Amino acid sequence: MWREGPRPPHPSRARGGALDEAVAAPHRGLATVCLSGTLEDKVAAAAAAGFDGIEVFEPDLVASPWPPAELAARCADLGLSVDLYQPFRDLDSTDPARFTRTLRRLDRKLDVMAALGADTVLVCSSVAPDAVDDPDQLAGQLATAAARAAERGLRIAYEALAWGRHVSTWERSWDAVRRADSPALGLCLDSFHVLSRGGDPAGFAAVPGEKLFFLQLADAPQLAMDVLQWSRHHRLFPGQGAFDLPGFVAAVLATGYAGPLSLEVFNDVYRQADPARTAVDAMRSLQWLEEALALRSPGAGPPPPPAAPALSGWSFTELAVDGVSGPRAADVLAALGFAHTGQHRSKPVQLWEQGRDPARRARVLLNASVVRPASAGVASVAALGLESADPARSAARAEAMSAPVLARTRGAAEAELSAVEAPDGTQVFFTRTVPGGWPADFLPTGEQPGTGAGVTGVDHVGLTQPFDSFDEAGLFYRAVLGLEPQELTEAAAPFGLVRTRAVTDPGRSVRLALSAATLRRGGWAPGVPEPQYVALATDDLVATARALRDGGAPVLPLPANYADDLEARLDLPADVLAAVREHGLMYEEDGTGGYLHLATEVLGDRVFFEVVQRLGGYDGYGTADAPVRMAAHRRRRQAADGGG
Amino acid sequence: MWREGPRPPHPSRARGGALDEAVAAPHRGLATVCLSGTLEDKVAAAAAAGFDGIEVFEPDLVASPWPPAELAARCADLGLSVDLYQPFRDLDSTDPARFTRTLRRLDRKLDVMAALGADTVLVCSSVAPDAVDDPDQLAGQLATAAARAAERGLRIAYEALAWGRHVSTWERSWDAVRRADSPALGLCLDSFHVLSRGGDPAGFAAVPGEKLFFLQLADAPQLAMDVLQWSRHHRLFPGQGAFDLPGFVAAVLATGYAGPLSLEVFNDVYRQADPARTAVDAMRSLQWLEEALALRSPGAGPPPPPAAPALSGWSFTELAVDGVSGPRAADVLAALGFAHTGQHRSKPVQLWEQGRDPARRARVLLNASVVRPASAGVASVAALGLESADPARSAARAEAMSAPVLARTRGAAEAELSAVEAPDGTQVFFTRTVPGGWPADFLPTGEQPGTGAGVTGVDHVGLTQPFDSFDEAGLFYRAVLGLEPQELTEAAAPFGLVRTRAVTDPGRSVRLALSAATLRRGGWAPGVPEPQYVALATDDLVATARALRDGGAPVLPLPANYADDLEARLDLPADVLAAVREHGLMYEEDGTGGYLHLATEVLGDRVFFEVVQRLGGYDGYGTADAPVRMAAHRRRRQAADGGG
Repeated sequence: MWREGPRPPHPSRARGGALDEAVAAPHRGLATVCLSGTLEDKVAAAAAAGFDGIEVFEPDLVASPWPPAELAARCADLGLSVDLYQPFRDLDSTDPARFTRTLRRLDRKLDVMAALGADTVLVCSSVAPDAVDDPDQLAGQLATAAARAAERGLRIAYEALAWGRHVSTWERSWDAVRRADSPALGLCLDSFHVLSRGGDPAGFAAVPGEKLFFLQLADAPQLAMDVLQWSRHHRLFPGQGAFDLPGFVAAVLATGYAGPLSLEVFNDVYRQADPARTAVDAMRSLQWLEEALALRSPGAGPPPPPAAPALSGWSFTELAVDGVSGPRAADVLAALGFAHTGQHRSKPVQLWEQGRDPARRARVLLNASVVRPASAGVASVAALGLESADPARSAARAEAMSAPVLARTRGAAEAELSAVEAPDGTQVFFTRTVPGGWPADFLPTGEQPGTGAGVTGVDHVGLTQPFDSFDEAGLFYRAVLGLEPQELTEAAAPFGLVRTRAVTDPGRSVRLALSAATLRRGGWAPGVPEPQYVALATDDLVATARALRDGGAPVLPLPANYADDLEARLDLPADVLAAVREHGLMYEEDGTGGYLHLATEVLGDRVFFEVVQRLGGYDGYGTADAPVRMAAHRRRRQAADGGG
Repeated sequence: MWREGPRPPHPSRARGGALDEAVAAPHRGLATVCLSGTLEDKVAAAAAAGFDGIEVFEPDLVASPWPPAELAARCADLGLSVDLYQPFRDLDSTDPARFTRTLRRLDRKLDVMAALGADTVLVCSSVAPDAVDDPDQLAGQLATAAARAAERGLRIAYEALAWGRHVSTWERSWDAVRRADSPALGLCLDSFHVLSRGGDPAGFAAVPGEKLFFLQLADAPQLAMDVLQWSRHHRLFPGQGAFDLPGFVAAVLATGYAGPLSLEVFNDVYRQADPARTAVDAMRSLQWLEEALALRSPGAGPPPPPAAPALSGWSFTELAVDGVSGPRAADVLAALGFAHTGQHRSKPVQLWEQGRDPARRARVLLNASVVRPASAGVASVAALGLESADPARSAARAEAMSAPVLARTRGAAEAELSAVEAPDGTQVFFTRTVPGGWPADFLPTGEQPGTGAGVTGVDHVGLTQPFDSFDEAGLFYRAVLGLEPQELTEAAAPFGLVRTRAVTDPGRSVRLALSAATLRRGGWAPGVPEPQYVALATDDLVATARALRDGGAPVLPLPANYADDLEARLDLPADVLAAVREHGLMYEEDGTGGYLHLATEVLGDRVFFEVVQRLGGYDGYGTADAPVRMAAHRRRRQAADGGG
């Protein structure tokens, strides 16, 4: 917003040590396979994000120049324990010679573990053609292996891969462990392997907690695909997918399990994203999970994060503008029915307002003081003001949830504001729009809020996310602000597939639509690269559209083919259809209601406005119409560039 | 190579019109959904690539400012027919009111088709809950719809979606068409829908050719996933996937079908790649398919492309170097056992050779005259010289297969060389290494080819492909050079997943390993971004490694952990294992043999050498070891940069 200044270190990097001392806090673990980079990069990122321990993924160690003892020393220096060595594959065999050979391999790996200071190795169920089917033979081979481990004071955690040859359910893995009856052999439960097959955690009650040696956690979207591919490419951190992780973990903890909560996420994006950032995202997923579990009892361990205060609406949306885009944005706001009601006391920031109801009113700030590394003439969404029941508590929670809290600088007579930075760099302010609150920073211009175009408030804000942080952003708003994710939609836009997921509060007071390309964009993307928009609400879009036309607003023209198709597909009332044709409206339905909307041209290459009217129970964001709107924006841009 | 000069226009853009006049040439079509961009972009790209017609994908038209009649006129101007309007969804219904409503929608779309000049609309089988299951009711509704089309002289091609509610096989769609018995109703066959469900094209023999109204073609990789997602995201052009397209089309043509061969490929990458380039790729896929079909009879239509002459090996690999990387490359080649045997007559190009057998010998050219938009000190693979049984015919074929042929400029006493540009910009020269051939361009330095390190020739060259052109490259080498693709492998490299597919001739004389990230890389990729390498062959890698050490070659050191893991996993002979540890060798197996190899450090940020020894029937490229090698390269680079 209108504050700047150096940022403090990321809070998650400043906590680390404190957690180790907390008696009741769970031990938070991260498998190195979750992160991109070399083992050296991964260990540094896990420590910086405040994890307590790591699972060492064997291929990471094999590629590392650090001998196991050196890795152990580096981890110790960073306050990380080595919780698990993984995976040991295809242990059992119906071929005795092969099993003997495998035990030799195991011995070597136990040597590595001893040097590494890891007391547990993960043995996953075999996928080999010679895997053992007979329960007693399997138990016998596991017991033999466990005896080797026990000789060195080590132990084996046996896990059912969802695609294991004979052992593919946790029940079968538990059956083998139970039959083997060896103190050095226990179970590893992995939420993905259980939940991807529709397994029921209620059955964990049959497992004594001391036989549960390890717990690996991963969420995932619900996908209809081969489970191995699903597992290796599409896992997510808890809170990012469709699985009930809190229910899963609660069932595990009910057994008495007191070991690490350890994340093991194979994900194509995280495999190539900045590991320091992924590790913070991972930490936040555990914090979200722990809160969902209400793990911590009062008085034990560090204080739990304060609950997310209710959000009741938008106080403002701030656009960063410059000398070219600022006057243009002001003209457009005026044409959209806004009035310039306030001027900031000390900074080049204008307040524009529209709407009769002060509790809902739409407010846009034009800030010419934000330094952004963008080309001249560009406008962009710099900040969102969210109305919080308790701004200080919102900020305290954000900080506890590893959100980067922005430095607070204030001038004389300026309200103190709490703000955090979202994954895409947008600043999120927690505000209360009350007398003496943030509006007091603005000197009245004498104008009253506009009312002529019938805009009543802000329906939602749409932000295109960087490719690498789409899932991170969803979890950020969920964990930090308490907004819940809505359904994921995918649209075939002119320059590639675009996915959208909104987050919102139960009362739909704050809706934020997050979009990203499903593949990172390459050189061919001549449209508006990362559009952002503010969707204004109206109760009568046809009337608003007339007012906008009269006011000279730059409403985006749409092709007649679009209206022809609407007419063919739907039974729209004749007057609505006429208005669609006349004003360039769009319309779509979701089964519970309809959505009538229009878009303006793009301001300064990045930002546009929509005006929207929700009909019935429609709960979406116009994403089915987005390709038509994008093609129209592209044409206006080509026309502006002098092209075809 | 050592030739430069302006390039001629892409040959595929120069042909267009001629095809229309060819009597026996098939009508080549492209669905607009195959391409990225707006409809305007797509039509231009299809015409430029020489297509005869398009399928208009309805959403493309809906988003277009061109009324149907204008699109028809634009297409006519460009020599494109509008072959199909598609898709019309969910026609049949058990709800009479809904069916009546649907017929009204159909009427409007028939209006559009009339204006568009499209005589056929694709009706796909319904996926709706109210879809008709009863064969006679379905046939009746299709006949009713066909009657509406017939009134306007239009017709309906009915297609079974692989995920249709009741009609999901081509047999059921044919049953409905047969029962309806309407002249305006025929079948649309789509290779994806049939082959993805394991359908047997042999059954097409039961369908009279005149009832086959349309043929849509798509290839695909064999994936274990939901067929709808497979279809919408992963289709490929013929020759790029795992389906038997030639067999499929042959079965269709045997019915007497004489309509368009039309490509309909939904692919996430092509949806966002340059449409001009995708269209050329698409055209090449049809050319490949037609050749595979031996469609054209002698004397009718344009002459078929000449068959691909056999390739018998590498004549040279050329590296582009500059004043910094050139001397470094020369030092490395010397250390690797090469000798500087020739100097180009007129250009700053050195010839380096190693190997006793002139027919296999490894030859590397260092060319300091290539202007490349790369940073200073970088070396890269600029050209490949391939030994062709008939270089002129290789070039003629390449030109016929829409490959960009490079301009030929030659100095006095220099051999004329034929070359084309591969999708990644690498120049591919067709050569014969004979007296008076290309070696005559080099003046002897007096040195004899090196032999000391035991390198016998080139095993393969590895090139990292741009993300957008991985599948295009595979088809390019297949169609243009006659090299067949090998198995796709995927490796979890330190900075993201990397896929590799090699192309090779039946005799394995020319092997080219093509790699790409499975997702386009973002900002976090601190390793070598797009490494290229030349893999030199030896019959005794341990002896070669000793010679390289003695010669001071910059062999890449590998971690002891790698050798420890090898020792744990495999029963390598003690002397080999000792050599692995001593010299930084890598070893992997593929079930038919083994692969012992080493890598050098990276020269000038991009290129390195491998030396490899194949054991038994090993037919791969060391991709399992690639992550270890990449991590080691990363460390050397960090060390060079003064980092960790």
